[in-house]
Amino acid sequence: MNAPPGAAPRPALADLLLRPRSVALVGISDDAGKTAGRPLAYLRTAGFRGAVYPVNPRRETVQGERAWPDLSSLPTVPDIVYVLTPTESVVPTVQECARLGVPVVAILASGFSESGPEGVKREGALREIARSSGIRILGPSSLGLVNFGNGLRLTANAAFAETDLPHGRVFVASHSGSMIGALVSRGKARGVGFAGLVSVGSEVDLSIGDICLSVLDDPAIDGFLLFLESTRHGAALRAFALEAARRGKPVIAYKLGRSDAAAEMAATHTGALSGEDDVADAFMKDMGIARVGVLEALLEAFPLARRVPLLPPGRPPRVGVVTTTGGGAAMAVDQLGLRGIDVQPCEPATLERLRAAGIDALGGRVLDLTLAGTKYEVMKCALDILLAASEFDLVLAVVGSSARLQPHLAVRPIVDSAGSSRPLAAMLVPDAPQALAELTAAGVAAFRSPEACADAIAAVFARRQPGEQPCVAYTSIATQAVSEARAYALLDSVGVPRAPFVVLPLDGSTEAALPFDYPVVAKVCSAHIPHKTEVGGVALGIDSPSALDVARATLRDNLARHASGAPCNEVLVQPMCKGLGEALVGYRIDPEVGPIVMLAAGGIWAEVMRDRSIRLAPVDLPTARQMVDEVKLLRTLSGLRGRPRGDLEALAAAVVAVSRLALHPELGVREAEVNPLMVLAEGQGVRAVDALVLTGK
Amino acid sequence: MNAPPGAAPRPALADLLLRPRSVALVGISDDAGKTAGRPLAYLRTAGFRGAVYPVNPRRETVQGERAWPDLSSLPTVPDIVYVLTPTESVVPTVQECARLGVPVVAILASGFSESGPEGVKREGALREIARSSGIRILGPSSLGLVNFGNGLRLTANAAFAETDLPHGRVFVASHSGSMIGALVSRGKARGVGFAGLVSVGSEVDLSIGDICLSVLDDPAIDGFLLFLESTRHGAALRAFALEAARRGKPVIAYKLGRSDAAAEMAATHTGALSGEDDVADAFMKDMGIARVGVLEALLEAFPLARRVPLLPPGRPPRVGVVTTTGGGAAMAVDQLGLRGIDVQPCEPATLERLRAAGIDALGGRVLDLTLAGTKYEVMKCALDILLAASEFDLVLAVVGSSARLQPHLAVRPIVDSAGSSRPLAAMLVPDAPQALAELTAAGVAAFRSPEACADAIAAVFARRQPGEQPCVAYTSIATQAVSEARAYALLDSVGVPRAPFVVLPLDGSTEAALPFDYPVVAKVCSAHIPHKTEVGGVALGIDSPSALDVARATLRDNLARHASGAPCNEVLVQPMCKGLGEALVGYRIDPEVGPIVMLAAGGIWAEVMRDRSIRLAPVDLPTARQMVDEVKLLRTLSGLRGRPRGDLEALAAAVVAVSRLALHPELGVREAEVNPLMVLAEGQGVRAVDALVLTGK
Repeated sequence: MNAPPGAAPRPALADLLLRPRSVALVGISDDAGKTAGRPLAYLRTAGFRGAVYPVNPRRETVQGERAWPDLSSLPTVPDIVYVLTPTESVVPTVQECARLGVPVVAILASGFSESGPEGVKREGALREIARSSGIRILGPSSLGLVNFGNGLRLTANAAFAETDLPHGRVFVASHSGSMIGALVSRGKARGVGFAGLVSVGSEVDLSIGDICLSVLDDPAIDGFLLFLESTRHGAALRAFALEAARRGKPVIAYKLGRSDAAAEMAATHTGALSGEDDVADAFMKDMGIARVGVLEALLEAFPLARRVPLLPPGRPPRVGVVTTTGGGAAMAVDQLGLRGIDVQPCEPATLERLRAAGIDALGGRVLDLTLAGTKYEVMKCALDILLAASEFDLVLAVVGSSARLQPHLAVRPIVDSAGSSRPLAAMLVPDAPQALAELTAAGVAAFRSPEACADAIAAVFARRQPGEQPCVAYTSIATQAVSEARAYALLDSVGVPRAPFVVLPLDGSTEAALPFDYPVVAKVCSAHIPHKTEVGGVALGIDSPSALDVARATLRDNLARHASGAPCNEVLVQPMCKGLGEALVGYRIDPEVGPIVMLAAGGIWAEVMRDRSIRLAPVDLPTARQMVDEVKLLRTLSGLRGRPRGDLEALAAAVVAVSRLALHPELGVREAEVNPLMVLAEGQGVRAVDALVLTGK
Repeated sequence: MNAPPGAAPRPALADLLLRPRSVALVGISDDAGKTAGRPLAYLRTAGFRGAVYPVNPRRETVQGERAWPDLSSLPTVPDIVYVLTPTESVVPTVQECARLGVPVVAILASGFSESGPEGVKREGALREIARSSGIRILGPSSLGLVNFGNGLRLTANAAFAETDLPHGRVFVASHSGSMIGALVSRGKARGVGFAGLVSVGSEVDLSIGDICLSVLDDPAIDGFLLFLESTRHGAALRAFALEAARRGKPVIAYKLGRSDAAAEMAATHTGALSGEDDVADAFMKDMGIARVGVLEALLEAFPLARRVPLLPPGRPPRVGVVTTTGGGAAMAVDQLGLRGIDVQPCEPATLERLRAAGIDALGGRVLDLTLAGTKYEVMKCALDILLAASEFDLVLAVVGSSARLQPHLAVRPIVDSAGSSRPLAAMLVPDAPQALAELTAAGVAAFRSPEACADAIAAVFARRQPGEQPCVAYTSIATQAVSEARAYALLDSVGVPRAPFVVLPLDGSTEAALPFDYPVVAKVCSAHIPHKTEVGGVALGIDSPSALDVARATLRDNLARHASGAPCNEVLVQPMCKGLGEALVGYRIDPEVGPIVMLAAGGIWAEVMRDRSIRLAPVDLPTARQMVDEVKLLRTLSGLRGRPRGDLEALAAAVVAVSRLALHPELGVREAEVNPLMVLAEGQGVRAVDALVLTGK
């Protein structure tokens, strides 16, 4: 950022956003009920102490306050200007802001890159102003910015008309402007407050990652909730998430686009290209972000995210459940099971302690105190013993009807256990808003539905320790294919095992002996023919030197017929290689989330089943082993029903090798697909028998 | 049911349950706060007008009323006796009831078949009393019975202490006693009332199906909500669901046991054996029951279930969405997409009408009126046009922040459209309890979360037209395997295509020519050897008569070594048959839900992927085609990427054939598995090449 020459040092971005000394409202309406009139009304009712400058060239006063005709008449350069004018006048206003040295401008209007060529041009102009002047832009389509700590309700979202909104310690950043209002109202109903909220709009300049990183060290903020339409600007999001993880400030996200229809809708809604959801999902988990799938869990998960530790790779979470209602607890157990978490019963020693304390534990999956055990002493004693037991990572208490009218029986003991060092959560089966609020106030994660409860628990346990970020540019760049021989050479340099090969001239005849036995396969070898099969460029089952000569002639013919323009002088010859099964290992520098590695079953199966495992690259061996476990179709190679076992350990090692492309930007590999990677019998390794690599620098 | 000799004709079960003239409370406590004291207090505060007889041998008065020392002292035989005493005294009390001619007894205590040998004995005694006397038993573990129409709060569930519970037109039947209270409190918070509720406990006699069928024609009841731990007593449930569908009274169910852990827990909780969840799921859909997966949807789905029509098989539901908030609507679109429902955009003619009415519709997947369109006239006009458009089966309106404080803008027009003949639903993005209640009161399905909204919509569209019930007994009976030759004969009689075969003596030598070409396979053929491979009873790739003799000798040796005790005199010889792929078609008379047919990919894939389609048997061809579509792995046979197409039409016909076993109880087939069924190229059919059939009568 360039400060204007001679200006005083600019305050930090966090201070400009959360604690601006002065705010100008350009295009503010006199009607406080209108969208463009709201920010002034809300700032005043919330008691914001900084200077507020209404700017409206057509009025002397606005909502009873003095209005300024333009930005240049203001007595000082404001820290933030919120532009409330229609789309057409936005660019000139931002230009004016830049000229005056305004550090941050927020834009309400929509009508930029999501709305045709004119909008794209307008958005380009904004980018150029930001680039050349150093002004930071929030929006367009930003419903604004709120800090509950100082009455900064710089927002046009109608939800902030309410004065008694609760103040908390979590900061919300949202792609959707309407959701900041929805979250505030839903939070209020549950006694969940926020430190502040920001609607980032279409992120022409300031992205969610940028903003959250800038406010990360604010002492009023203990964690973050993100409402995401996509993982665009993934590099900034990654930088933020890494630092948040380092400081132990949890990040919880709800992301749209889980279904194809919604992904498409997010794309049209914001003009952003939206990636595949499982890539985004892997990204969030690898960044230590708890991604919830149930909206309500976004509000409820924070106390868990703050206290649940990250587990070592491959260790399943151990959740214990105590309840006064078998039927209610079964709903939570069911929902947890659907998310891959099998509730654990108590260990014998714990059952012994329970029995010694007079609690008759039958030893089922859940500790069911029953209606008869719905007493403070029984529940408190059971919680004390479970929270002290070493077999649980988390204890969930499920309370039945008594939670509504008699919270002193089974809810109060949970509140009184809030200080436990072991994470504790509660789910209430009846409608019991009072008890939920008491639990929330005590810092216990409290859930009103089995779905949100299980979703939040699964999301916090699904987080992985974020690794370091490799130094590669994410942005989409032009790429080109290399020949199969060159692809192998690149993959060799990171250690991906492959079948041996020789490269022969396409039009010679076979003179020297091959360094491997027949039968062999011959494939045209050219950077210009990435899809060999489609042009008849593969000859299989060649069993002699003369057959190889015939094959070369056939390949020449086929090329002449189907790919006459493509330069090709070579043929790659490889031994035929049959394994127990086939895998597909892919790598790419995703334009949103950066380098990723992907494992799937090879062949036709991968096409009919979405059955793949994805991680940010590079990965280590334990992570690669987990990936192998996650691909269901690969279980056919795991020795099922006496079938021979494939070398899954070598497969995991190959995934590690491919993923290490992320550590070698000098190779220039943007995308690689080894398909098939033949999986041989246990102990005999894996072999790449085809590979496609795209490079670009 | 046997009426005692000389007694007046007994009232119908529905009247006894919903409108008993007199109620006795055996073991009623003087303390209205105790579980065993509640029913008297609740009946009195609710103003029940029938006679209520407290029975307590140890007290002259209970809660200020005269107490009777025992049932035989009562001035009349009560219509219902609620037994509140401890487990040990339940059986003698029920015996006494039977002796006195009491028509219905409800039992609060637990401690029956779920709790060990003593409990099993007690439960057996109850069954025997019911069988011999005709007394009907509700429970054990029943928290009772409620009719909001007449103050019958014959329940020990603490939730019914509240006097201002709303009265509605839906009847609730629940396996879980605590859930009747939870549903009432959750309903109250949402303005959803009930006609009545029953906690059926462990269903020693009266099952959910029995009770709901008995009250089906009650004019105060418009529909049913079921909270199920399993689909036990499926025949009664089926009989009820069929009649309910016939009368157009919708049935909505939430069923536990979707995950394996919870299925196991439901089994231990109630002592019932719990079936596979996908079988239960197929059962409910085929019975026209809307099965929701999100708890809250159970309360919210009724207005939709009442109005959404059943679609013809294979026709996807067409849902249109109108919104004032793109981000909020995207959540609903996303959740619908995850459940296989792609929201449909407006047709050009509809867009034209919208434009003519001044509504600027961009033509995306969702009609987004935006913040600017948040006005009564705009929303009402858009709804009028969408509800009149022929392209939608359902219109969903998603309302943003205005729903909370300004419901007149975008909620009121939805309320005013409630009379439309097209089904209409609403989802509110902020917390807006008032608006939700108004919508609910107007009969519009109103949702507070995108998950419940999509879940309810998907559930009502997933219902299928219930077919007739074949006349077979569901109950588990002893079965035995038949030989492969006999299995083919049974399958022949319903028309399942198979490879030809001959049966030869195991120890002869091959004299006559085979009626098909070599190579062939030879398999030991005996009812006593259902798993041939495990005893070395299969010889493959036999290419001559002499090789067949060798194979027969080898089979004899293998049998002598691995199955010496099993009688076997025959060998079944079949031509080797190779298809493009393998399928598995199964049939069984499930002890819970009756005859079912199942289709899956054959071979190892079926074992690693839960990828199968299930229906109640018999099925027709359109249904069987849908089943083929539902098995993802069978897509490898659908001509993908230029691969040859399998004869999927013949596969569907084979599924129909197998399913027709349900229409032939005289065949005595309890279970059949054709695996593999070889799928040949299009036009060439399918062939069973192995089959296992279990019979029993």
